[in-house]
Amino acid sequence: MAARPSGVVADPLPRGRQRCRPEAFFERALARYRTLTTRALLDFIPRGGPPYLYELVSSYPRRGGKGLRAALCLATCGALGGSEQQSLNSAVAIELFHNAFLLHDDVQDGSLARRGGATLYREHGVGIAVNVGNATSLLALQRVVHNRSILGPETSWHLVRETERMMRHSLEGQAIELGWIRDNVCRLEPRDYLHMCLKKTAWYSFIYPLRAGALVADGALEDTNRFCRFGWYVGAAFQVRDDVLNLTGKYARYDLMERYGSINFARGAARQLAGAALIEALTAFRGVPDSEYKRFILEMVLYVVRRDR
Amino acid sequence: MAARPSGVVADPLPRGRQRCRPEAFFERALARYRTLTTRALLDFIPRGGPPYLYELVSSYPRRGGKGLRAALCLATCGALGGSEQQSLNSAVAIELFHNAFLLHDDVQDGSLARRGGATLYREHGVGIAVNVGNATSLLALQRVVHNRSILGPETSWHLVRETERMMRHSLEGQAIELGWIRDNVCRLEPRDYLHMCLKKTAWYSFIYPLRAGALVADGALEDTNRFCRFGWYVGAAFQVRDDVLNLTGKYARYDLMERYGSINFARGAARQLAGAALIEALTAFRGVPDSEYKRFILEMVLYVVRRDR
Repeated sequence: MAARPSGVVADPLPRGRQRCRPEAFFERALARYRTLTTRALLDFIPRGGPPYLYELVSSYPRRGGKGLRAALCLATCGALGGSEQQSLNSAVAIELFHNAFLLHDDVQDGSLARRGGATLYREHGVGIAVNVGNATSLLALQRVVHNRSILGPETSWHLVRETERMMRHSLEGQAIELGWIRDNVCRLEPRDYLHMCLKKTAWYSFIYPLRAGALVADGALEDTNRFCRFGWYVGAAFQVRDDVLNLTGKYARYDLMERYGSINFARGAARQLAGAALIEALTAFRGVPDSEYKRFILEMVLYVVRRDR
Repeated sequence: MAARPSGVVADPLPRGRQRCRPEAFFERALARYRTLTTRALLDFIPRGGPPYLYELVSSYPRRGGKGLRAALCLATCGALGGSEQQSLNSAVAIELFHNAFLLHDDVQDGSLARRGGATLYREHGVGIAVNVGNATSLLALQRVVHNRSILGPETSWHLVRETERMMRHSLEGQAIELGWIRDNVCRLEPRDYLHMCLKKTAWYSFIYPLRAGALVADGALEDTNRFCRFGWYVGAAFQVRDDVLNLTGKYARYDLMERYGSINFARGAARQLAGAALIEALTAFRGVPDSEYKRFILEMVLYVVRRDR
């Protein structure tokens, strides 16, 4: 068994009422989901094989991400009456896809650091990083395919189709952004940015986990389209907040942006998007009985704009 | 409809006896399979979408590869009683996977040229090339998934599993080679090289097309393991010949290798491997009625060591 990732704390089910800070419930639940997913994910990575492959697949997951995407899948399935045992496999797939995207994205953006360490391509070169990204993506696909033995052929078939759709949106979103950089496109309107966000971030980070969790909970019966608007708004709020954090971090130089009010404009936009997301969440989960799962999903919207990492 | 790739000639079914050169039958059949597959492949690439994506997915296929992998799948299916209509979808997937591997491999190896043009990453940068590789791989997966509507849920399920296995071998093989380069491993025995070949080249180029063609022809009933030995030998012969062609091309500098007899050693090894492949082909297709499909497969073994590109 691999070493426990830093920042992953064994935590029982969130019990009783929230204490002093209103975020306490959310953070404890998130930590529990993260522990559950990270353990299953690391357990699933093959031992052995050639050097520079599987031990590097576990590199980013071991550095301890937020685990938000997997948590959303687990909570959605739970809120709709499914079990964590049924959705854990999809949650692991979602985190693996996320890590695969990060591995390639770091190469594509020339990023220097990831989760407190050097990016993998800086440590081992572009060739190995691209291959490790491909391996991570394949392990994710294997988890999706493996659903057949857990959920039966029909539901797992729907999940394969959902996965295919999500991958298409992600790489089209990536192409949009790479094209802007290549052509040095500067005249972008908010709607251009939001369209890119929807495809590059919102779909795989929020819409796919919501839809996958719902599919696992009740097979093909769930109308998964009702999660699209919620997922889009919360994804956009998340990405805008992410950009603000990147621009206001201690190494950021953003005098000009500050002077023109860009940062405050973005902060305001993130709050408005989160407000819209909350309305859509209440609509999408209308009629769903209250539970700690449902509460986690609603509180996630607030977390997305309040978080500082 | 995209422009016809250079080197693709519309050619009817090979008719009658071979003419002067013994290779004529093989080359005409290969050209026909290539036309069939390339047309279907280009038809399947989405129009529209963001810039720097789908129009670049068609870039390498338009440059006109050999089409050997797709041809092997179509011929195997035909030899075992299936139709080209049934296996065309898998043949397209195989060519797409091949192009996806080339796109990433060119980045990983820092290759300058591919099929008579600059490599894609040299034209558009590493970021875009990695994304176009991912898109090509996704389109291949979509073809595999699409088999369900052509072949039904059981056979398409087996093909998904075959595809997963093939992808695993390919990226493990890639990891072996990248690791040798990273660690500057020079003390390699023929068996190390052949093991890398099996995983990196032989599986996706020969074993997978053989097994996929057989699965399409008779669903899950075919014992696809009987194609492994044939696929491995012919794949090894192919790769050794490929390396010889790379080393003896007009830009190659290989005085030292020539002096030590390395090139002639490799030429001899390719012939021996091809001989073993022919024996395994006859074993694997024993009891299969003679046909132009079967003849194509047997002649392919000779082509692999005779070819000059």
